[in-house]
Amino acid sequence: MTFNNQQVIFAQECKSLPVPGEHLQVRGSSIDLDAPLADGAYIVKHLYFSIDPYFRHGLANFPPNIWGFQLGQVVRGVALGVVSRSSNPKYPQGAIVISQFAKGLFSEYSIIQGSEQEHYQVLLEDGKASKIPLSNYLGVLGVAGMTGYYGLFEHGKPKAGETIFVSGAAGGVGQLVGQLAKLHGLHVVGSAGTDEKVAYLKEIGYDGAFNYKKSDMGAKLAELCPNGIDLVFENVGGDSLNTAIAHCNNWARIVMCGTSGHKANGGAVPNISMMMPKRLRMQAINAHDISPEMKKEFTHQVTEWLIQGKIQYREYITEGIENTPKAVVDMLVGENLGKAIVKVADL
Amino acid sequence: MTFNNQQVIFAQECKSLPVPGEHLQVRGSSIDLDAPLADGAYIVKHLYFSIDPYFRHGLANFPPNIWGFQLGQVVRGVALGVVSRSSNPKYPQGAIVISQFAKGLFSEYSIIQGSEQEHYQVLLEDGKASKIPLSNYLGVLGVAGMTGYYGLFEHGKPKAGETIFVSGAAGGVGQLVGQLAKLHGLHVVGSAGTDEKVAYLKEIGYDGAFNYKKSDMGAKLAELCPNGIDLVFENVGGDSLNTAIAHCNNWARIVMCGTSGHKANGGAVPNISMMMPKRLRMQAINAHDISPEMKKEFTHQVTEWLIQGKIQYREYITEGIENTPKAVVDMLVGENLGKAIVKVADL
Repeated sequence: MTFNNQQVIFAQECKSLPVPGEHLQVRGSSIDLDAPLADGAYIVKHLYFSIDPYFRHGLANFPPNIWGFQLGQVVRGVALGVVSRSSNPKYPQGAIVISQFAKGLFSEYSIIQGSEQEHYQVLLEDGKASKIPLSNYLGVLGVAGMTGYYGLFEHGKPKAGETIFVSGAAGGVGQLVGQLAKLHGLHVVGSAGTDEKVAYLKEIGYDGAFNYKKSDMGAKLAELCPNGIDLVFENVGGDSLNTAIAHCNNWARIVMCGTSGHKANGGAVPNISMMMPKRLRMQAINAHDISPEMKKEFTHQVTEWLIQGKIQYREYITEGIENTPKAVVDMLVGENLGKAIVKVADL
Repeated sequence: MTFNNQQVIFAQECKSLPVPGEHLQVRGSSIDLDAPLADGAYIVKHLYFSIDPYFRHGLANFPPNIWGFQLGQVVRGVALGVVSRSSNPKYPQGAIVISQFAKGLFSEYSIIQGSEQEHYQVLLEDGKASKIPLSNYLGVLGVAGMTGYYGLFEHGKPKAGETIFVSGAAGGVGQLVGQLAKLHGLHVVGSAGTDEKVAYLKEIGYDGAFNYKKSDMGAKLAELCPNGIDLVFENVGGDSLNTAIAHCNNWARIVMCGTSGHKANGGAVPNISMMMPKRLRMQAINAHDISPEMKKEFTHQVTEWLIQGKIQYREYITEGIENTPKAVVDMLVGENLGKAIVKVADL
């Protein structure tokens, strides 16, 4: 049976906010879901897409484009699905699978064959129920969560009693970072762009939180971090980074995870001079550099904490593959409270 | 006998270039060099002062003023001298001594007593000849050299075959860093502000060097670092840092040692966004954080290399304590080729 398979296409390079239907387009493409499968091939019906801040760089074709965005091609991204047909014993029908950055990912259906086979990972065998919502595998247990875990523990080196400041704290990465830091005995302060997000941060255990659009950030940091900042988890850059540096203690570590706000003021960070007497470190991170050991530890530990209710994680789910471009824009302007995800289909 | 002891005074806070006689003043103060010495006291006749870039921050009273500059007080700095009289067996007459940041250092003579006694370190006992010029202890073997050694090895982690870019490479720190990197098998490229300095860099083994005031820095880096940059030793900041980031390879390390050029363009570093996909690290350093083990290794190793002629080190010596304020200005505007030092007296 021929099916009109909807796909999200990277249609045009975009240096600022993408326009749905222009830079990102959703187009149908004919696919035969009943055709005989080559040996080792299988079909994945996608259920969820992950929508993440690195889209900004990917869509800008910002070199090096490590995310594999290619003009005219289906967006790669990260997607979760179910195997709907298979001639590959490793990926049996009914298995829940996930893939990161494989070719042709942002489609309703993908026929996987040849060298692409290994790009999927089996999360759950057929019939094995998940103890957590499947969408969690794209957020708190996906790249966003892994970014937070890796950045905090590998580079942030948090110590009980220290103060951490998390900017963009209600996002997919920030909400986990704050809770992890809290579980490790830190004083946790975060910024976010709406009052609703600030309320959420307090709900999940942040000791202090403020709306950076409505406050003098310097005054807020002085008030909420009376002992100064030992660790910055920077999801924004620009003014946020500049102000945080001024409140850092000597030898503070800055984990740089996002720079979406960096261009806003012409990239000015005059306080970089203050890094010298304070001996600050600024480390830009990418979750793909995580070691296999830490990745295992992350998955195990965070799953446990989720099941035990020690960690909460909010998602912002947009329904329908046709709304993927809008979901990307919403995420880039900070409309989402929680990890941005597109729901493509029911299981 | 009463002596009119000349001293360099931090007279006025200064946010830009100090004006000799205004922000930094040389004044006489009465001292009796023949008065009886309390038990444990000794008199140091200073021979050399070290003039270093951190003066900019010290004179600006830039918090935290870790260098101990205090308004109305004698500049602390780093000074080398000879014990001219002593009632302290640890500091016998004729011993060559050095002190870092002790009270009242920038004077012709200092009477050292009480809690200040331990601030001096004996470099050479009386009569023991130095195999290297005494002024070397303030430059290549002093804070400047230690900054280069510590920054390069503790934070830069150089590997043979890598490319290092050193900005402000003909300065007290940079000239050593390039030679150390060369001894470790790196491809070494540096920038400096005059053609004379560039020629000197080539003379001491830099593989490539350019005058940043006369060239397009981006084009020069592309030409001289064909394999990209793995390690930046940043003595300037600002535009230099911004351009270097664009030419860094993934996982490059930036050792931030100076930011004198950072304010020039309003502190803009738009390329900080590029740190993310490249996973760069920026570490601000201060030689005072060196471990005792590395300090010992540094002194031993660099002394050996100097004696063997494997390392050259240029000094820019200004004669006379009365010219100290001018020496500070010369250093801050980059007039000096080599480590800036004031010669106060002959041995």
